[in-house]
Amino acid sequence: MLYAADAVNIAIEELAKLPGIGRKTAQRLAFFLLKRDKDEIEALAHSLIALKEKIKYCSVCFNITENDPCPICTSSTRDKTIICVVEEANDVLAIEKTSEFQGHYHVLGGVLSPLDGIGPDSLTIRELITRLADGVSEVIVATNASAEGEATAVYLSKLIKPLELKITRIARGIPMGGDLEYTDEVTLARALSERTLM
Amino acid sequence: MLYAADAVNIAIEELAKLPGIGRKTAQRLAFFLLKRDKDEIEALAHSLIALKEKIKYCSVCFNITENDPCPICTSSTRDKTIICVVEEANDVLAIEKTSEFQGHYHVLGGVLSPLDGIGPDSLTIRELITRLADGVSEVIVATNASAEGEATAVYLSKLIKPLELKITRIARGIPMGGDLEYTDEVTLARALSERTLM
Repeated sequence: MLYAADAVNIAIEELAKLPGIGRKTAQRLAFFLLKRDKDEIEALAHSLIALKEKIKYCSVCFNITENDPCPICTSSTRDKTIICVVEEANDVLAIEKTSEFQGHYHVLGGVLSPLDGIGPDSLTIRELITRLADGVSEVIVATNASAEGEATAVYLSKLIKPLELKITRIARGIPMGGDLEYTDEVTLARALSERTLM
Repeated sequence: MLYAADAVNIAIEELAKLPGIGRKTAQRLAFFLLKRDKDEIEALAHSLIALKEKIKYCSVCFNITENDPCPICTSSTRDKTIICVVEEANDVLAIEKTSEFQGHYHVLGGVLSPLDGIGPDSLTIRELITRLADGVSEVIVATNASAEGEATAVYLSKLIKPLELKITRIARGIPMGGDLEYTDEVTLARALSERTLM
């Protein structure tokens, strides 16, 4: 196009590579940034570069961290005997926000997905099993309620069962504030079959 | 929060400053970038910095450009006698995409908005009037169809009228593919009053 300055086109293309950001949004972001001060743009750009430079994976739980092992694994106040298994590092953040869990985590780094070539060896399952020998009494499987998440949960429970630990799965049911009328049948069926005593 | 690595928090905060990106989306973007290669993140970061370093404003039309005057103002094939007045540089892009317009542009840099302290002197209206003396025969006012855009259009038409040029306003009506049933009353009323001969 005659109009566009190359630098703008390149920035739009780079921004459009981000998930959930199409060309239109990328364009809006680029024009927004054009109107900002140089300092502000540099702060954003440098924060993104620092992201990759400073962040590593905890060698114990595989959560992201600036120091290895991570603050959760080295914390003296958290319960070492409970391990909550999640798919990704952002799931740790989601659970930490609830302030409901005071144990340790284990980040799988994904879910079993044979069609995408992701088998048990692609995940940190071997490392999880090794950790379980160290005085762990309960494993909470907190993978997503998706097909792959459920399959991974079943796989893990079969693998862990011989170790005679308590294995639990996070509850699935109607979300808080949810309406029966607008809840899908699978969720509603699950909510009924897993009903709890009042 | 005990969990979060500072670099992640900073990146999330910087991303959340972008328009239309809340904390949740910023978080998703940060975790997406964490999984990308260092090269890809640097390409994005540097494209944003280049945006500010390379882009300047055309001294004639105030569109963004890498070379001053911009390619549109220096083009030998475009019609110098028609000037299309728009609010912002991204409006130029939107009109260029239609391939309907072969004249020159003038970017106001905003709209009149007395409540925000934006009067005629904050915009490039003086520069527009100067340009009109140079053989221009028509001014198309293509500000947005918002209250401020309409007010700016009326202001401009009053200002330009004494110069005895043709002043036109882009048509307002039902968008292509639009449904009468779902069109708001103001638009529908405008579409009726500005009906054209078939």
